[in-house]
Amino acid sequence: MDIFKNLKEKVFEANIRLKTEGLIVLTWGNVSAIDREHEVIAIKPSGIPYHLLKPEQIVIVDLKTSAPIVENGLAPSSDTPTHLELYRNFPEIGAIVHTHSTYATVWSQACMEIPPLGTTHADTFSTPIPCTRPMNKEEIMSDYELNTGKVIVERIKGTNPLHCPAVLVSHHGPFTWGITPENAVENAVILEQVAQMAILTRQLIPTISNIPGTLLLKHFQRKHGPHAYYGQSSSRK
Amino acid sequence: MDIFKNLKEKVFEANIRLKTEGLIVLTWGNVSAIDREHEVIAIKPSGIPYHLLKPEQIVIVDLKTSAPIVENGLAPSSDTPTHLELYRNFPEIGAIVHTHSTYATVWSQACMEIPPLGTTHADTFSTPIPCTRPMNKEEIMSDYELNTGKVIVERIKGTNPLHCPAVLVSHHGPFTWGITPENAVENAVILEQVAQMAILTRQLIPTISNIPGTLLLKHFQRKHGPHAYYGQSSSRK
Amino acid sequence: MDIFKNLKEKVFEANIRLKTEGLIVLTWGNVSAIDREHEVIAIKPSGIPYHLLKPEQIVIVDLKTSAPIVENGLAPSSDTPTHLELYRNFPEIGAIVHTHSTYATVWSQACMEIPPLGTTHADTFSTPIPCTRPMNKEEIMSDYELNTGKVIVERIKGTNPLHCPAVLVSHHGPFTWGITPENAVENAVILEQVAQMAILTRQLIPTISNIPGTLLLKHFQRKHGPHAYYGQSSSRK
Amino acid sequence: MDIFKNLKEKVFEANIRLKTEGLIVLTWGNVSAIDREHEVIAIKPSGIPYHLLKPEQIVIVDLKTSAPIVENGLAPSSDTPTHLELYRNFPEIGAIVHTHSTYATVWSQACMEIPPLGTTHADTFSTPIPCTRPMNKEEIMSDYELNTGKVIVERIKGTNPLHCPAVLVSHHGPFTWGITPENAVENAVILEQVAQMAILTRQLIPTISNIPGTLLLKHFQRKHGPHAYYGQSSSRK
Repeated sequence: MDIFKNLKEKVFEANIRLKTEGLIVLTWGNVSAIDREHEVIAIKPSGIPYHLLKPEQIVIVDLKTSAPIVENGLAPSSDTPTHLELYRNFPEIGAIVHTHSTYATVWSQACMEIPPLGTTHADTFSTPIPCTRPMNKEEIMSDYELNTGKVIVERIKGTNPLHCPAVLVSHHGPFTWGITPENAVENAVILEQVAQMAILTRQLIPTISNIPGTLLLKHFQRKHGPHAYYGQSSSRK
Repeated sequence: MDIFKNLKEKVFEANIRLKTEGLIVLTWGNVSAIDREHEVIAIKPSGIPYHLLKPEQIVIVDLKTSAPIVENGLAPSSDTPTHLELYRNFPEIGAIVHTHSTYATVWSQACMEIPPLGTTHADTFSTPIPCTRPMNKEEIMSDYELNTGKVIVERIKGTNPLHCPAVLVSHHGPFTWGITPENAVENAVILEQVAQMAILTRQLIPTISNIPGTLLLKHFQRKHGPHAYYGQSSSRK
Repeated sequence: MDIFKNLKEKVFEANIRLKTEGLIVLTWGNVSAIDREHEVIAIKPSGIPYHLLKPEQIVIVDLKTSAPIVENGLAPSSDTPTHLELYRNFPEIGAIVHTHSTYATVWSQACMEIPPLGTTHADTFSTPIPCTRPMNKEEIMSDYELNTGKVIVERIKGTNPLHCPAVLVSHHGPFTWGITPENAVENAVILEQVAQMAILTRQLIPTISNIPGTLLLKHFQRKHGPHAYYGQSSSRK
Repeated sequence: MDIFKNLKEKVFEANIRLKTEGLIVLTWGNVSAIDREHEVIAIKPSGIPYHLLKPEQIVIVDLKTSAPIVENGLAPSSDTPTHLELYRNFPEIGAIVHTHSTYATVWSQACMEIPPLGTTHADTFSTPIPCTRPMNKEEIMSDYELNTGKVIVERIKGTNPLHCPAVLVSHHGPFTWGITPENAVENAVILEQVAQMAILTRQLIPTISNIPGTLLLKHFQRKHGPHAYYGQSSSRK
């Protein structure tokens, strides 16, 4: 019996949803989730087309050794070291998503954080979406994917990652996360929508100011935190 | 027997159409309609995914007390106080729609009204689409959703709301309305199209002037008012 | 037996294709075709939703009197006088399409012609896409739709309408035409694509020059005229 | 028995996928593949609508004489001489794709190469996407399609065409290629995505610099070359 069957199925479904939400071109992008009790993560195998992907192809990787627990013989996503570094540093995170979704990637290519320009941003992100510093030659040439994780950690260390469940990697693209794989995928959907609206808003007013702080806080707390009142009480996060 | 069954079904169908028209991301957005005889409104429950929504989950809320008439135990949309404030002030309105549709939200984030730049605008809106003033700290911190309704009323009071069935809330997003839920949803579709074309037109000519007043009036009256001649006579509004 | 049955079916199919090609919002837009032998046109009824439209609802209108030949009791498109004016002035035209498709309408709202910036334009249009002059108050206040036809005729009179089968009406939107309804719809599809690419190209280079004249002519003649060699010989136009 | 049956089916499937990937308007665009042993190419017939296209309609053309091997009586794509010129000059190429996909065509219309602005570009293209010089009158007036091939060869001669499997033809549109038809189509999909993101990134920062060279090389080699580690080992290219 496969004790990780349920975890694999959830990760499989989240990967497929990433595709149906329109965030994925070809095989780009991946979702992982962690089982903190057994100290393993489940992650998409590398380079498998979405229409051929099956739940049993999801790869289980050891959190401590970073090695795949050999079961199906498939290599995990080449971005696995980035995911592992985030899980090790942020115990609040239960699942991680990486995409090259169009508008979030554009902000990453510009090496710019996404400013909070409206309540759509504030409903999910209580701050600007941060952008990592560019990596230096040494960081790129060896252990590139691990170092990608390290510059993300360097950028957001000391914050609660659930208060802004997204980051942009300079020149590259976005990572989002959440408590569950479903939650992490929804944050990727929201990030893409927020990224598109921010570009268009700057087109109307290039010098646009951020949303007032009171309104930013009000909207974030309406959906999150102890006094949240959006949604049915059982589903509030 | 449920005397609000028909009202709930119409509101349910309008909510679903909002999703199929592409105006909705995740669970954002809601449609309500009023039964003025019984002084109640029917509105989408808060935070239920569209693919799980059922007609019997639509919530009935008392127009006077603002309290849900407990039937299905679900909380109404968190935007309910905004809807109620509009129904109380504008007896012409039969249904209200709120979305975060991309282009209309972009104009809201820029805190700018949408200028009438062509006949597509004029066919439905006889004026610019107004934008509310930003709310102050007190208005945001207490009774936020009610105050959202109040700044809308403040902005359009004294006009016939059916002559421009849409408003933008600063930093937030659009509300539209109409005589029926179907009508209010169609106005949300039109607003989004008009908002997109206005952004693109300004890209071609940043200093673009409004459509001439005669042409604005001509197109609005072609579809609306006593001498309307668009559509089959029984369907003219 | 209905001698216009075939004409109505072709016009019905072309109207439906206009919707499936994504050029139509709600009920906006219409296709007509002419039977020059019987001197009638067939055109979409006014304001009928596309999913309810049936071939027998297409309205037959007399070319000389402009009056519907009463059959199904439906009012023809309110734009019928515009269509009739074009058929009367250009015997080469067999079918006409009107839409508010996004990008072509944006150029119309800007009252600008679309410059020929690439071979995609040249494959169908041998000149810039012309834009009519704005109408004056008198032209708007009486016989507006007929006058819309007249300013189009004024703009393109003396040219072969098949050498540039499209025009933009200032502040309003595009009309396209062709030998058959299918041909006119395809020209509406091409116009929209050309209009979008021209806006985006100007974004890259605001002072972009037109495609060289030799290349413009080469591509137009590759698909059209006596020495056309695109397509299978039986389908060349 | 048809010795080219398999080749025709692969070319047919790649042409259809070009349509389903959203890169094709009407009948624009074509895919070919080469059988180097028999010195023939298989290519889409000219101007056949995609929904009517059948595998047996794919045309076989002799690489040396440029003449169709008469089988089905259909004329090959009018762009055939361009394809042949590329196959003759670059033995590495197994399949070629031509489209008028929106964003890649916009860069072609602007006669600009696409700069490498992020890792999405670097994963497939190790350099900027080159753009050919404009053709002169003589080149346009006679043997236009052959000369289109010649200016492409002139532009990229001396490079490994698989290190940047795409080129933009000035004023016209993109060509991509690969080892297999599937590979060439995927490169067309990637080019379009990269072209869109580059336009949007320049909107955010008009003076944007290229991605650092170390990162460009790292990402290209991660997916290509002797030490590639993206994908399952059997599927690495």
